[in-house]
Order: sequence, then structure tokens, then C-alpha cells
Amino acid sequence: MKPIRVGILGATGTVGQRFISLLEGNPWFEITALAASDRSVGMPYHQACTWRVSADCPVHVREMIVQACEPGLDCELVFSALPAEMAGVIELQMAQAGYAVLSNASSHRLDDDVPLLIPEVNPEHTLLIAQQRQRRGWDKGFIVTNPNCSTTGLVLALKPLYDAFKIRKVMVTTLQALSGAGYPGVPSLDSLDNVVPFIKGEEEKMIIEPRKLLGGLNAPNDAVELADMRISAACNRVATRDGHLETVSVELGQKASVEEAVYALRSFRSAPYRLGCPSAAEPVIVVRDESDRPQTVLDRDSGHGMAVIVGRVRPCSVLDLKFVVLSHNTIRGAAGGAILNAELLIAQGWVK
Amino acid sequence: MKPIRVGILGATGTVGQRFISLLEGNPWFEITALAASDRSVGMPYHQACTWRVSADCPVHVREMIVQACEPGLDCELVFSALPAEMAGVIELQMAQAGYAVLSNASSHRLDDDVPLLIPEVNPEHTLLIAQQRQRRGWDKGFIVTNPNCSTTGLVLALKPLYDAFKIRKVMVTTLQALSGAGYPGVPSLDSLDNVVPFIKGEEEKMIIEPRKLLGGLNAPNDAVELADMRISAACNRVATRDGHLETVSVELGQKASVEEAVYALRSFRSAPYRLGCPSAAEPVIVVRDESDRPQTVLDRDSGHGMAVIVGRVRPCSVLDLKFVVLSHNTIRGAAGGAILNAELLIAQGWVK
Amino acid sequence: MKPIRVGILGATGTVGQRFISLLEGNPWFEITALAASDRSVGMPYHQACTWRVSADCPVHVREMIVQACEPGLDCELVFSALPAEMAGVIELQMAQAGYAVLSNASSHRLDDDVPLLIPEVNPEHTLLIAQQRQRRGWDKGFIVTNPNCSTTGLVLALKPLYDAFKIRKVMVTTLQALSGAGYPGVPSLDSLDNVVPFIKGEEEKMIIEPRKLLGGLNAPNDAVELADMRISAACNRVATRDGHLETVSVELGQKASVEEAVYALRSFRSAPYRLGCPSAAEPVIVVRDESDRPQTVLDRDSGHGMAVIVGRVRPCSVLDLKFVVLSHNTIRGAAGGAILNAELLIAQGWVK
Amino acid sequence: MKPIRVGILGATGTVGQRFISLLEGNPWFEITALAASDRSVGMPYHQACTWRVSADCPVHVREMIVQACEPGLDCELVFSALPAEMAGVIELQMAQAGYAVLSNASSHRLDDDVPLLIPEVNPEHTLLIAQQRQRRGWDKGFIVTNPNCSTTGLVLALKPLYDAFKIRKVMVTTLQALSGAGYPGVPSLDSLDNVVPFIKGEEEKMIIEPRKLLGGLNAPNDAVELADMRISAACNRVATRDGHLETVSVELGQKASVEEAVYALRSFRSAPYRLGCPSAAEPVIVVRDESDRPQTVLDRDSGHGMAVIVGRVRPCSVLDLKFVVLSHNTIRGAAGGAILNAELLIAQGWVK
Repeated sequence: MKPIRVGILGATGTVGQRFISLLEGNPWFEITALAASDRSVGMPYHQACTWRVSADCPVHVREMIVQACEPGLDCELVFSALPAEMAGVIELQMAQAGYAVLSNASSHRLDDDVPLLIPEVNPEHTLLIAQQRQRRGWDKGFIVTNPNCSTTGLVLALKPLYDAFKIRKVMVTTLQALSGAGYPGVPSLDSLDNVVPFIKGEEEKMIIEPRKLLGGLNAPNDAVELADMRISAACNRVATRDGHLETVSVELGQKASVEEAVYALRSFRSAPYRLGCPSAAEPVIVVRDESDRPQTVLDRDSGHGMAVIVGRVRPCSVLDLKFVVLSHNTIRGAAGGAILNAELLIAQGWVK
Repeated sequence: MKPIRVGILGATGTVGQRFISLLEGNPWFEITALAASDRSVGMPYHQACTWRVSADCPVHVREMIVQACEPGLDCELVFSALPAEMAGVIELQMAQAGYAVLSNASSHRLDDDVPLLIPEVNPEHTLLIAQQRQRRGWDKGFIVTNPNCSTTGLVLALKPLYDAFKIRKVMVTTLQALSGAGYPGVPSLDSLDNVVPFIKGEEEKMIIEPRKLLGGLNAPNDAVELADMRISAACNRVATRDGHLETVSVELGQKASVEEAVYALRSFRSAPYRLGCPSAAEPVIVVRDESDRPQTVLDRDSGHGMAVIVGRVRPCSVLDLKFVVLSHNTIRGAAGGAILNAELLIAQGWVK
Repeated sequence: MKPIRVGILGATGTVGQRFISLLEGNPWFEITALAASDRSVGMPYHQACTWRVSADCPVHVREMIVQACEPGLDCELVFSALPAEMAGVIELQMAQAGYAVLSNASSHRLDDDVPLLIPEVNPEHTLLIAQQRQRRGWDKGFIVTNPNCSTTGLVLALKPLYDAFKIRKVMVTTLQALSGAGYPGVPSLDSLDNVVPFIKGEEEKMIIEPRKLLGGLNAPNDAVELADMRISAACNRVATRDGHLETVSVELGQKASVEEAVYALRSFRSAPYRLGCPSAAEPVIVVRDESDRPQTVLDRDSGHGMAVIVGRVRPCSVLDLKFVVLSHNTIRGAAGGAILNAELLIAQGWVK
Repeated sequence: MKPIRVGILGATGTVGQRFISLLEGNPWFEITALAASDRSVGMPYHQACTWRVSADCPVHVREMIVQACEPGLDCELVFSALPAEMAGVIELQMAQAGYAVLSNASSHRLDDDVPLLIPEVNPEHTLLIAQQRQRRGWDKGFIVTNPNCSTTGLVLALKPLYDAFKIRKVMVTTLQALSGAGYPGVPSLDSLDNVVPFIKGEEEKMIIEPRKLLGGLNAPNDAVELADMRISAACNRVATRDGHLETVSVELGQKASVEEAVYALRSFRSAPYRLGCPSAAEPVIVVRDESDRPQTVLDRDSGHGMAVIVGRVRPCSVLDLKFVVLSHNTIRGAAGGAILNAELLIAQGWVK
């Protein structure tokens, strides 16, 4: 297969850099365009960007000239790492112009005809693409979104339990990493020796996105029927670089023992892995037995950052079960998630 | 009033040092004895101890000779900062020998005839002292305990809500400071860029201690009737020096709005403050309105570390209300709490 | 004495907040004006400012209306916490308008007729004020500056050695705290698990400022004769909140043993303390004997943040002596230093 | 080539774990024995060890039974990650019993007949092995050591300058990572928001080891003639996980410009790389031009942790040149260095 030619919108930010880093060596894609805000347009990428992912930006990307975030990019597919306030309009323009838009932004996640997609969770939601094109009069382009970084880990852990036992209520507290706020992001004086018990907009996303992700799509022209569950979230910023750790309690529709829950989690198989997607991890849910795991620094890179790690599955004296889940926020929860979405779309034939 | 002569058991550890630091300048007490484990006995305090609270150990304490943790100490009251595995036996010996024992250890917290005490929450539980003496045949000594550091902040915040609306269920996730594990305690490689989602024994304590603290004492010779509530806890160690931050959700017995809850919290008055106890903070519950407070580094020293700070009071979509609470773990949650207990006992006449 | 009425230029930043915090309770001063950049003018202080020094901004300051940084402020003396790019012009305007300007900015530090002042080091340099007024045609106002935060600690430690033995060469490496960069300042992703071996402009300041501070003033109308020494500096940002720690090696003009050096350091007496300045620490140089001190978190608050702490005085196999020095960068090295300068000027009669 | 069978002494510690991690996938070696202290002997490795390098210990190592640190191990070569107090005797026993001992411990580094080896710096020092065997009556075994972690990065950066210009004096201040102290190592309360300006024994090692590494070996039966230079060191522990950053000033024997120095550093070629050693990095010295690099978190993994990174080469106003050097302490400075030593010995024919 010839690699798909891809562009990156918002290429200079933290998530944009992750896209570049993760696409390096991915056999299904080739980066052919980088786009960012006006202040970077026309500059070589390495000048426009304070590269923060590792020591050096990949050589072949360094000298690429940053372009504007608008149609005209030499590629078939764009990954959008744009901030929400810009993503809304630009992504529509790009899709209308015929680009497959794989967005990490929140702008269109809840649009009725836009898939909010985790390949292991709701691969059938890509059916919405046909409806989206029809409704909007697009012949080739489309928008597919991945959820918020803190939603992704949670929903991957909930999925096997939801399938096996249904879930009625979810209580989650997050301990989120600094990279989730981008760069420069959180000031160091707010981080060192501190916890900030608030992340703007985050709790609202966590309350609704899982319901769409776990929701049913009964007919190709319907909207997704939101899963019938109540979610309550408390989001905190802690002093870690990468990796969102979450403590979760769930009330199940049908009672289940700890052993049954662990069995459901361990038995879960990755659909995109079966389809040969190169970024898919198997197992995508790693269940650890130690009493003190997952830990952020030790476990966030499991499955090259694409696995979610579950530990401390135990009874809850208020709801039914409690556990801890960890996932890598800028890989699984952002750039890596969007890339896996693109791989699923290729495997399903939506992108050629 | 002549100051009470006090000794400190476990004087060389993190909590022991806090006792010394907090008793400096407290007009009701005078340190006359320091005791620690065998390896320190006979040494001047400053040699036996790696002083970590601030630049320098108080001068008059530096040269005091460390004694054994056994009767014979020249004092009327002892504060126990002993580890639980030693506290059980030693505290009994000291009480039997006539000392007032104010313990920070968990060993006797759940004994039927031992008060588990927060002066602002359940000052009437000190009535158990009479029962304790009678049952155990002690004429003068007794044991009074303060709760676990992560329980203290939680229960102080729950108390006004419990009084006003009853509480049926509590879901709490803690983000606890490093000093809670003592010194050397948590290895730096476990802390930097990491979260450890487990603290041995902590969740068990948080599930039971609040029920005794909020429980009723119907007659002096009864045991405390545990409050009828279910608690579920998830405890995490994060990279902060001091200050346990907790995200809390509660189900109330009687519905209340956010405003009513905030009113109850803000109206709460400190009983030991009214009694003139020098360590009592007023207000003891500080409610903050900012969306991102309390923050550990900014707020932990409120009320000289004796206040608890509540913020983000808001509706919960699974239970009824959510909020964040912060309290200083080695002051309010340990040494400061025990000292305030001692002050209450003096004010109530149990110690003379 | 009636307190001097003071204003603060740049009141909303990190150093501005420190001025407010330190002036609280200082009997010689009363804050009567706050000034900051246009975007804050007209707002109550607590709205214009993200208060970061502690839990709460002093009550009487909260509602003060922020004014513009220009003449018209109701005060006799202004402390300038302005950034260098604004301080140059504004401070001249204020001095011309008759204000005593005590500046923490670098703009005028090296002007021939402006004292660069540390009260314990070169109190006689205030003689330059007369020359400054005469030359510039000011009748009442003047500018006095304090050195860069990393210079202050170094020079205080050098002063007794310079007086006793002369100093020919100084090699210094700094490990500087995050607060030195202000707020938002250093991004947390640049700080966590990292060292940044560069601070813009810092090494240049450290190479020249000590020479002026230790330089001689032979006649009131001369310029200061720079001390004849060579200095080499390497400045690093590390993950501490407050407190610049520096490793120093010196070559002396006249050989001295470790004991002689320690004796000189320990014998040093604070001139402003003798004059009754309320912010002066005595001893201002604390020499510690332990092999692993000073440590940033333990020692930075010595002398209420106004002392410098010296440790590990030992022979150097390349130059003559090595030692470690620590000082609090936003207290001793900035706001506290400027306040002590003002106190000296009051004691010397320059401000009435 | 059949892989060499290797054992690891001190396999359960931080450096031991790094050996296991780095030997994974190294084609020249196969781990066949793990040894540690008595308390671990007889246990499966994963039970004896708190694995901290990454999420999981390599599968084939997990169940290996830990043996005692004494002859009888099924291997030809042992890597010693023993603490110095045990290494002295055990390494002698192993060498006498015929094992090639590649030691990271300090015990024998300064023995006249023991090579202190960095393959890129002094590969000819392996000639001492013949002398060692003869003198001690060993027919097959031998001991080769690698330097202290903070020495390694320094000397690699000094080597090209020493060869080109000679070096008379070196002044170095280190900012060392937590992993250098092992596990549990530095307590988190000593690390968070702190610098500890002292590391026991470290400065002494840095003063002497570079002189042996850069020293000449005139005849196979001579001792190494120490390089004629004076070194002064100040060692600090900062809050980074891995990577020792050092600020260095040097006085050269023959003056050189910054450009000449950079040219010498950039032209340096790795001898072990030319010999095909799989762990060798090329370039082994990475010179960065940015004003704020190297940074610990961004650059420590350069060359898979086997390169040293030099930046900020500039004139020194006290000596001649200043620069910053960073190297990965548990890879380049410990386990990786010892493995590369073993690879050199294989390439030179000392190990077959």
C-alpha cells in the first residue's frame, strides 16, 4: 500500500509535535504538509516550533515550510491539533474542500453526524460519515473526532464492563498531567508542590462524551443514542509530565464480582488490532494485579502509550466496583488516538 | 495558668518534630521530656534527629536527652507520635502509669472506651474517659486519640452538612502529601513525575473513622453509635510536601442546594475557639469561591495550618453534592490536632 | 515616627506581591498607592492580580484601585518592581517628580550616579544621591537600586572575605528558583524533571554588579571604582520555588585558611541592624557546619528570608576556597532588599 | 558470533535493573545468571526486585532464580552493580575464579593494575589486564572498571580538548539526578522543592578519576601516569530522575577559541563505534548550538543514553573556556558504560 499523504493542522503545539513524532515510522502515513497559525506561516518548521517531545525534531520535517490552516495543503488527510476556538470553522472548510479531517479538537465531537470515535470501543459509529456527507453536501471530505484525553482512558476501561454488565453510574476523579495543558501551559509555580483542583471545561466533557462513545447507532441515518448512565467528574492537575491517572467507581446494571470484572477487562480484544492497524495495542487493556499499580511514571508507556492500564479492581461500598485507570494523554488520549482512528478508517475503506 | 508539662513519644520522627515546632510558643504547654526508640535513647535530641521542619530545631530542645518510651518521664501529659506497631502497648503502659496520653497513632482509635476526637466535631465524646478509667482501673491516666490525617479534613467538612442535612453516602478520592509517610518515607523516584494510587491501610481508616467521629454518644457508659453512612475511598500519593487535598461527593439525607450547603459550612463555629484554646482556628472551615481553589501550596497554611479549606461546592450528578477539601496533614491532621485535643481536655477540666 | 507613605510600581507581579506581603506589619511604612500596567489600571487590586504569595492578599490592599505608573501617586517613596524594559523611563519620571525611587529593576543599576546598594555591604554608596540630584537637577527625588537576586547572596558572602583578604577571582554556578522568573514565568514542562542551564542576561549581571557593590567611592562626586576582580558565572534554573543556591570558588589576594574565612564570615556584623532597620537580620550571614547545608527548602527562610546562608567552606584545588551560598531570591534578593535599602535611607536621613 | 553468557552481581538494585534492561536485545550478550545479596538468594527475580526501570521486567528474566554473589555462576563474564563496600572482596573472588569482571563499583578503580576504562577515551588502557593477571596470578579472569557516573560525562567532553590543547585546570559543578543514589535512595522530602549541595564521596572521585582516564600508559607493565591537571568539584543533587548536568570551566595548556574547541568536540570519533560495538553512539559527543541546551529532560536520551551532550561553549573570564555537559547517569555513566567496556574487550579479543 502506498502511504496516505497527511497534513497536520496546529503542527507547532504540543499535540502537533506528538503527531509528527508518532507518524515517524508509521508505514501507513507520510507527512507532506504542516500548517499552523499566521505567526508561523512561511517559516521552516524547526524555527516556528519549540520542539519539546524529545531531543530533536525528525530531520525531514525540520525544513518543511509551515503553511496556513486552509485548503490547498498537499495531502488527502489532515490531523487537527487546533485549539477548539479555531478548529470549529477551519475543520469545516477542510472537510468541505475534500479532506478527511481527523480531529483532536472538541468543536465537533457532539455534532449529531460526526463520529466521536475510539476504534476499540465504537468502530461502527463511522457509519455516520455517510450521513454527514449527505447532510452537508460533501462528496469526499468528512470529520471524525477523538474524545478528550481524560475521556479516552476512562471509556476504554468502561467498555468491557458496559458490554458485560451495563453501567448506570460513574464517579471519576482525575489526576491529570501537565502536558494536557499544552506549552507553555501550566506555570511551574502552579505545579511544583501543588495540586490545582480544576481544569476548565474538562468535567463537562467527561460527563457527556462517554455517553456518546458507548451509545448505540441503530440505523445509519439516526443520531447516536446516548448511553443511559450518569457520570460525575472531579478533575485535578498534578505534577506529572504525561499520563492521566483516574480513580473510578461504577454502579453496574447487573451485579458482578471483582473476578468477573477483571475477566471482562482481560478478555477484551482490540478490533483495530485484528484489522492490522499499526498503532493498535494488544492487549489494549492491561490489568495489573499489584496493589500499587498503575503508577504514572512506570506504566504510561505500556503498549507504546496506546494501552490503558487498569489496577486495584475492588468492591466499592457506595457504588459497586472501584478501580484505577491510567492512559497516556498525548498519545492514547490525543495524537495516537487520532492516528488510530485514521488507521481504522483506512481499514474500513473510508480513506483510500 | 501554669503550663502543663508535656513529653513527646516518638519525638524524632516527622510528626514528633511537628509537635516540638507547634508547642514552641504555645502558652498552655511546656516540653519537659522527649522519648524515642532505643537507638536514640541517651543522645541529645539534635543528634538523634534529622530535623526537617525548618532550618533549626528550637534551642532549648536541642540538648534535651532522649529517653525511653516508658513511664518515668517528667511530665503529666504525653503526645504520642509513635508508629502504630509500637503505640498499642506503650500507650497503655503510659496511661496506666497515670499519664494523659494524646495519641496520633491508630492503635486505640476504635477501642470502644477511647475517644476518637476532633474538638470542633465531637467534644462530647470525651465523656468516654470516665468509662475508660473505670473499665481499665486507671485513676488518673487515659488515652484520647485523633483521627488519621486524611480523615480529619474530610470529617471537619462533613460535620456541618451532617448536622444540617444528614449524610448517607460519601465518595472520596485523596491526593495526599509526602510528609504523611514520614521521613525517609516515600523514595523520590516514586514521587517525581508520578502518582502512587495506593497508601497502605489508609482507605480502611477513612471508611470507619468518620462514622465514629460523627457518631452519637447516648449515655456516658455506652459506646459511640456509629453514624449510619457508607463511605468509599481511593487514596493517592502525589508530589506535594504538605497538605492533603480530597475530592468529595456526598448523598444527603435531606436534599440541599449548593447555597444551603455553603451557608451551613460558613456558619460553622469552632467550639474549642469559644473555649479559648490557643490552637483553635476561627473560622475552622474556610469556604473559597474561586473556581480553582483550594490549592495545596496556596491554602494549606490557612489558620496556621489548623483550618480546613473547602471549595468548588457544586451539584453531583451521581450523588447530591461535590466539593474539594484541603487540610494540612502534619498540623491539622496530626500534631496540631492532638495539641488541640489536649487544649480541649484542659478547657473541659480533664487535665489540670 | 510616622510611617512613610509608599507606592508600589508593578504591584501585580511576583515581586510586587512580595513588596505588599513584606510591608505588612513593617512599622516604618504604609502602603498608600499601587500602580501597574494599563490593563490593570482602574481595577481593585485583587481583581487585577493573581495573588500567589500565600492564601490571601492583605485585606486593606485588596480593594485599593490600581493606578498608572506615573507621577500623581499619593506617596513619598515608590518601590519599583517594574520589568527592565519599562523601568528605565518610568523611574526617571518618578524621581524627577520628587519621589524617592527604590528600584529592583536593572535599568539604572550601572548608572554612574545611581547607588547599587546592599546596606550591609556598601552603605556609604548612598553618597551618590547628592551627586545624582545635582547632575540631573532633581531637588528631592532620586533613584537607588538593589542588585540582581543572584548577585545579592553572592556579594553578601564575598564582602567579609573581600574586606579581610581581597578577592581576585570568583567562579560561581547558580541553581536558581522558579520565582525568579516571575509569574507565569517558567512553564512547568520546562521545570519538572529538568534543569535549564541558561537564564537570559543573568550571567552578565553577575559579572559586573559585584564589582560595583564591592567598589570604592573615594569622593562624593566620583563614580564608584569597580573592584578589581574577575568573575565567571554559569546560571541554571532548577525546580525550586524560592531560594537561589550557588556554588562558589574564590581566589584570594592574601591566602587564608578555611578557619580564617569562616571566622571572617561569622564575625560580620550588619550595619543596618545596628541602625535599627526593622528588616535587617542579625546575623546576616549564617554559617552552617553540617556537610549537606544550606539546603534550599530548609534554609531559605533563615532570618525571615533576609539572611544568607553559607556552608561547606573548604579548600579549592583550582582557586583558593570553595563554599555554597543560599539566599531567598524574592525576599533578600528583591523586595526585601529594596525595603532594607529604604530603611537604610531613612536611618541615614535621605528619606524623611 | 555466539553471545557471551553474562551474569549480573547486584541484579536487584537500580543499576542492576539497568543492566538487564540494556542487555535486552544486545546481540553480543545473553543473561544467564543473576546474583544479589543473601536476602534475595533463592527467590525468583521478580519477587526479589522492585522493578523500576519501566512497566515490566523482561519476561525471560522474571523467573530466573537469584543466586549468591560468588563463583559458581553459569557465565563467563559478570557485570558488577554491587555497592562499593561489598564489591571489593567479591570482585576479587570472581576474577580469581576466572570470570571477566566488568565493574561499576569504585573499589578497584584506582588499583594500579586495573583499567579504569571509557572505550572512547582510553581504549589502550586495557593493556593493564595482562599485567593484572600476571601480578595476581590469574590465568583467565580480570577486573575492568568504569568511572563514576559524574566523571564519565565530564571526561568524554574533556578528551578532545585534552588531546588538542591540553588541560591544566578544571572547575566543575554538578546537578545530579536522583537515580544516581539508587532506590530507595533520596527521600522525596529531601528532593521536592530542594537542592542538596552534597553527595558523599562524589567530589573526591571527580578530582582523581579524570586524571587516570586521561593519563598515559607508556609501557604495558607500568602504571598509568596521571594526567597533570588540577580539578575542583562541587556536587549537588537536584530533582531530576536521570541525567547529570555539569557546568564546566577549563584552563587550557594552549589557548583555543570557542570555534576551535567546538571543532575539536565535533570532530571526535568513537573508537568502539568503528570497532562495531553495538552500544557505541556516533557521534558520542553531541554539540548543541542553542543557548539553552542541553536540558536534562530533553537531551539525556541522545544516542540511546550513550552520547554526551555539550552546549554553551563560551569564553570564561577566570579560566579559558566554559561549557555545559549532560550525560545519562544510569546508562552512559553506569550500566551502559560497563556494557560498552565489555564490548570493547570482546572487540579487542580479551573476552572470547
